[in-house]
Amino acid sequence: MSNPTDAVRHHDPAARGFASDNYAGVHPEILAAIALANGGHQIAYGEDQYTEHLQSVFKRHFGDRAEAYPVFNGTGANVVALQALLPRWGAVIAAESAHINVDECGAPEKMAGIKLHLVPTPDGKLTPELIDRQAYGWDDEHRASPLAVSITQSTELGTLYTADEVKAICDHAHERGMLVHMDGSRLANAAATLGLPFREFTTEAGVDVLSFGGTKNGLLFGEAVVVLNPERVRNIKYLRKMSMQLASKMRFVSVQFEALLTGDLWLRNAGHANAMAKRLETAVRGIDGITVVRPVQANAVFAILPREVSERLQKRYRFYFWDEHTGEVRWMTAFDTTEEDIDAFAAAIAEEMAR
Amino acid sequence: MSNPTDAVRHHDPAARGFASDNYAGVHPEILAAIALANGGHQIAYGEDQYTEHLQSVFKRHFGDRAEAYPVFNGTGANVVALQALLPRWGAVIAAESAHINVDECGAPEKMAGIKLHLVPTPDGKLTPELIDRQAYGWDDEHRASPLAVSITQSTELGTLYTADEVKAICDHAHERGMLVHMDGSRLANAAATLGLPFREFTTEAGVDVLSFGGTKNGLLFGEAVVVLNPERVRNIKYLRKMSMQLASKMRFVSVQFEALLTGDLWLRNAGHANAMAKRLETAVRGIDGITVVRPVQANAVFAILPREVSERLQKRYRFYFWDEHTGEVRWMTAFDTTEEDIDAFAAAIAEEMAR
Amino acid sequence: MSNPTDAVRHHDPAARGFASDNYAGVHPEILAAIALANGGHQIAYGEDQYTEHLQSVFKRHFGDRAEAYPVFNGTGANVVALQALLPRWGAVIAAESAHINVDECGAPEKMAGIKLHLVPTPDGKLTPELIDRQAYGWDDEHRASPLAVSITQSTELGTLYTADEVKAICDHAHERGMLVHMDGSRLANAAATLGLPFREFTTEAGVDVLSFGGTKNGLLFGEAVVVLNPERVRNIKYLRKMSMQLASKMRFVSVQFEALLTGDLWLRNAGHANAMAKRLETAVRGIDGITVVRPVQANAVFAILPREVSERLQKRYRFYFWDEHTGEVRWMTAFDTTEEDIDAFAAAIAEEMAR
Amino acid sequence: MSNPTDAVRHHDPAARGFASDNYAGVHPEILAAIALANGGHQIAYGEDQYTEHLQSVFKRHFGDRAEAYPVFNGTGANVVALQALLPRWGAVIAAESAHINVDECGAPEKMAGIKLHLVPTPDGKLTPELIDRQAYGWDDEHRASPLAVSITQSTELGTLYTADEVKAICDHAHERGMLVHMDGSRLANAAATLGLPFREFTTEAGVDVLSFGGTKNGLLFGEAVVVLNPERVRNIKYLRKMSMQLASKMRFVSVQFEALLTGDLWLRNAGHANAMAKRLETAVRGIDGITVVRPVQANAVFAILPREVSERLQKRYRFYFWDEHTGEVRWMTAFDTTEEDIDAFAAAIAEEMAR
Repeated sequence: MSNPTDAVRHHDPAARGFASDNYAGVHPEILAAIALANGGHQIAYGEDQYTEHLQSVFKRHFGDRAEAYPVFNGTGANVVALQALLPRWGAVIAAESAHINVDECGAPEKMAGIKLHLVPTPDGKLTPELIDRQAYGWDDEHRASPLAVSITQSTELGTLYTADEVKAICDHAHERGMLVHMDGSRLANAAATLGLPFREFTTEAGVDVLSFGGTKNGLLFGEAVVVLNPERVRNIKYLRKMSMQLASKMRFVSVQFEALLTGDLWLRNAGHANAMAKRLETAVRGIDGITVVRPVQANAVFAILPREVSERLQKRYRFYFWDEHTGEVRWMTAFDTTEEDIDAFAAAIAEEMAR
Repeated sequence: MSNPTDAVRHHDPAARGFASDNYAGVHPEILAAIALANGGHQIAYGEDQYTEHLQSVFKRHFGDRAEAYPVFNGTGANVVALQALLPRWGAVIAAESAHINVDECGAPEKMAGIKLHLVPTPDGKLTPELIDRQAYGWDDEHRASPLAVSITQSTELGTLYTADEVKAICDHAHERGMLVHMDGSRLANAAATLGLPFREFTTEAGVDVLSFGGTKNGLLFGEAVVVLNPERVRNIKYLRKMSMQLASKMRFVSVQFEALLTGDLWLRNAGHANAMAKRLETAVRGIDGITVVRPVQANAVFAILPREVSERLQKRYRFYFWDEHTGEVRWMTAFDTTEEDIDAFAAAIAEEMAR
Repeated sequence: MSNPTDAVRHHDPAARGFASDNYAGVHPEILAAIALANGGHQIAYGEDQYTEHLQSVFKRHFGDRAEAYPVFNGTGANVVALQALLPRWGAVIAAESAHINVDECGAPEKMAGIKLHLVPTPDGKLTPELIDRQAYGWDDEHRASPLAVSITQSTELGTLYTADEVKAICDHAHERGMLVHMDGSRLANAAATLGLPFREFTTEAGVDVLSFGGTKNGLLFGEAVVVLNPERVRNIKYLRKMSMQLASKMRFVSVQFEALLTGDLWLRNAGHANAMAKRLETAVRGIDGITVVRPVQANAVFAILPREVSERLQKRYRFYFWDEHTGEVRWMTAFDTTEEDIDAFAAAIAEEMAR
Repeated sequence: MSNPTDAVRHHDPAARGFASDNYAGVHPEILAAIALANGGHQIAYGEDQYTEHLQSVFKRHFGDRAEAYPVFNGTGANVVALQALLPRWGAVIAAESAHINVDECGAPEKMAGIKLHLVPTPDGKLTPELIDRQAYGWDDEHRASPLAVSITQSTELGTLYTADEVKAICDHAHERGMLVHMDGSRLANAAATLGLPFREFTTEAGVDVLSFGGTKNGLLFGEAVVVLNPERVRNIKYLRKMSMQLASKMRFVSVQFEALLTGDLWLRNAGHANAMAKRLETAVRGIDGITVVRPVQANAVFAILPREVSERLQKRYRFYFWDEHTGEVRWMTAFDTTEEDIDAFAAAIAEEMAR
């Protein structure tokens, strides 16, 4: 970029860690797309030509009825989507580990008055049986009515749902009068592992509304609320605005999604991140004293190793403890994680384990 | 930008209108700053080095106690800031024309349960006298307690407050136990006209918390909640997160503000936009049958002309009717409006008036 | 009542004033009804036999489709009813003087996220023309959608709507896709003056949902949300519970309404209160220096008299200033106000005016 | 009651069941108190002489700093109290079985935006250890801050906390910066079993704010938010009003509490209900095939017996299944349950078991 700017670089652009896929920056093709959309005037608040074009991009992935509403972030996408599914007295059934429960500072409750009916799960995944632990009492006004189910794909625990599993959940929910939301902040990672087009495990499986994640897949920022069942999910435009999620210069959100989804950038990014997680898993499975404790199905590796080893390791690479009690750690890979990063990290782990 | 991208250009980068400063794109120096901050990993959610550095940038403009919390958009900034000022039972006094009343789909009420006590004003500006029309009843639990005042600088009507006027309002409010919020989505435009450093008509005038606008001043996106009185305004970090305004890759918001505020880009952009509005005002004051109906103190010109003229003109340039009843129109200029744009638009107005 | 009790009488049961119809106690026939419903067990939360019977009582007054949901108080009734009319992004058009705006501590905004679009009125009454000042922008997501109109019958200013006026408002609202709520905390007073059955100026005029007031009409406590148009107004039972308005021992609310509405107690109480207001109006119109400033159509007299006279008078009788600026005072009568009370008060006024 | 009334008796005042203490009516001494407070005018909305006097009544039971705010119902009391304890971003730790979680239609979330951090418990009781499962993350804005703990005394499962247990919880919470709410909708039942003055297991144990239950203890309606620590719990009057819990004719709520708490009516009622539960427990423990599954410490007996027996029994007496899966039933006694009721019910159980 040859333009001058008064900003200066404050960081080392070569440093990478394993703390979060949100720590990564922007994919260069995305930056190029932003530059492309710049210049001149475009109608603000979503009536621009990029957002209009984006509709056909999303329809190609999610079916002809899909409608995409770009928003700022994942919490925003989830809260907008859930409001569209629920009347004022409604509640949503979700896994205890769901992002909407543990990582959104109560935004669903605080901003939208949405009650969560939670279910503990072994792997971050709901099932019809688990849903049934909270799916009752629709006629009883003393109970906040469970009128939606929210599942995360891929999950917060690095696992994923097969298309059949999603379909079973959607059928089960719909039979009981509940709609289905999918938190897809890492949907591309799921698609890459499943080897399926998005629509096969979303629209065609019966999901009603989707939070589609862009940020973790290489965007500067941006998620989209994608309506898959427009007969049941309506009025997103009002909910998005009142939920403080309407970008004025929306062309710059939309063009990023265009760059991501027109070709295979989404798949290259997600597939690479997943492969790096697998590479890491393979490497650490070979190290005595470390247990990989969850299936590695997306871009996360969850492992248990001696706490003091983790703490020494954290001085060399950033990552988080997932569970302070068990000492479980989470290692995440991103679109920009390299094979060298993995190999060096694995070597460091081995080294610290050997001390 | 030489990187490839699957996105294509859908618009004419030379086309500009007078509908909104939000229709403009991103200033090239801002894009350059974003590129600069890219690469490598940075801690997400605001613990990155750009956001840390940004604090000193804001302190230079707003005083040593200032704390800046980047957020996504103006509605978000306002709702976060107002929540910080108000207990659950509180209300805010604002002008009827305030953005928080007319243009946020009720977000203050819907997301934060904030009641607005509104006052009609001739020019979008509150005064101590106007405030007093709603400033009463603190002890009466039947009335939502007016515990904050919100003013917009520059206003939605293109007018502005002098430093003394702001100070008079703040003193008045503080004496009555009310805190003061300034919606500064166009603060730079006010500073450019006043010819004053920001702090003289904000911090030093007594404003407690500020929504500082970046988007209308040339950013891709981004506003900041700026705490000016940290003794009274606290816990923004929690309010920002629960209000769905916490960007994961915050470095890219912060570096934009760094590029804007380190040197004089903010002033160049705002000063230019203001000058273009003045140039337009001058041009149309010379055309018979058009009345400029409000002082042109920032980057907007409000005028009354025959409705059919406006409608013909709208086929050539985009702009909005401000008041359908009176036929008043609003013409806004932006950082990228050129002298040629103004002259051509003025010529078109004259032409349509003459038909 | 011959039962012993550890409570003692703390007040003078002969003292009455003109401050509010809420200052009055309970009509003896209502107390008798409560006693009648006592003893034995009844299903809680509204499935008792009194609440079941009450449906037919309300249907007789409001038509066969009417459904009555007893609640605790007027604010509760209003907030429940408005939630039933409005989607999450909706707003309600109301008079600036409406109770929902000035006397509920922002409960509509705070508890239900409802934005009010207010209109100043000369007499507390909306008209189609006044409604139109706020009835626009349904398609614009920047504006909280005006999807309901709320009118008060009789109004907070002691005036009332004719059946034709209500019908004109309902027709106007319905044509624009807005539903109509009537705050009828003093509905009986309106009916008494109009000399009409309730249904003629509610159900048959097109009102969709009603807050029916009992407390000001002689109950111990209790209002009812009355659904008049069950096709458009649904799910009150959930809204009532989540709004903390579901009484466990509901039989005691319902039996009060039964006592009020089965015979003519409602009309005796309201008609008497209205007559007392008229008697007071007549008396004070004869006193020089006092202006009755609003039509006396229900149980309130609004008057302007010298402030020092009012202040002296307040030492003898309780009543409120309505407008501190103009010195306007409000005198209210209740079901238990006697002719002697009025005559003594009028004499006191004359006496103080003469000093 | 000799007054005439148009209401008629619709129920059998001799019929009683075991479904809920809310099914009972009003204690005659309470009705007598209401009649006593009737007549004449009293200032509305809590400035009456009964509410003033009530303060000294509550101070006698809860200490000199106690402040009592009468409200309508238990959900209202809880939501008002929790709002006073929590900032906008706060959450409350509670047992999964807490009334605020399972029986209030999400009112805490929906009306007040309060997130619940829930803990499963074996007996409805929290402990410091159980609290610690949710007590973390105060500094992390991604987690709704656990800033209050709510416990129910006696619990929804018929168990109770000793004074020491309450104190341990309060100490634990306070050390972590959390305040403590006690849902005391059946506080009198706990006091009766513990044989302690209220203050010993509330104020003196460190509880900050209390929902004090009147309805289940023989009132017509009425609960009170009792502030025990006025340094930490403030502004209830605003929260009560905006939460639609401010009774206009409050004298009639207050006088009921006066009748309940001045002498020993509260203790007679609660002690009797508890004794009836014990009598029932004793009777059924003697019946083969029935297991009493929880300690009987208040006025509830939880038992498991063959489902078909329960269903036959329900045709003779009203009561609820507590857990559809296990077949556990709940039998509740009230102030008006007689020894004959218990004996007849026990006989019926034995009879149905023997069929």
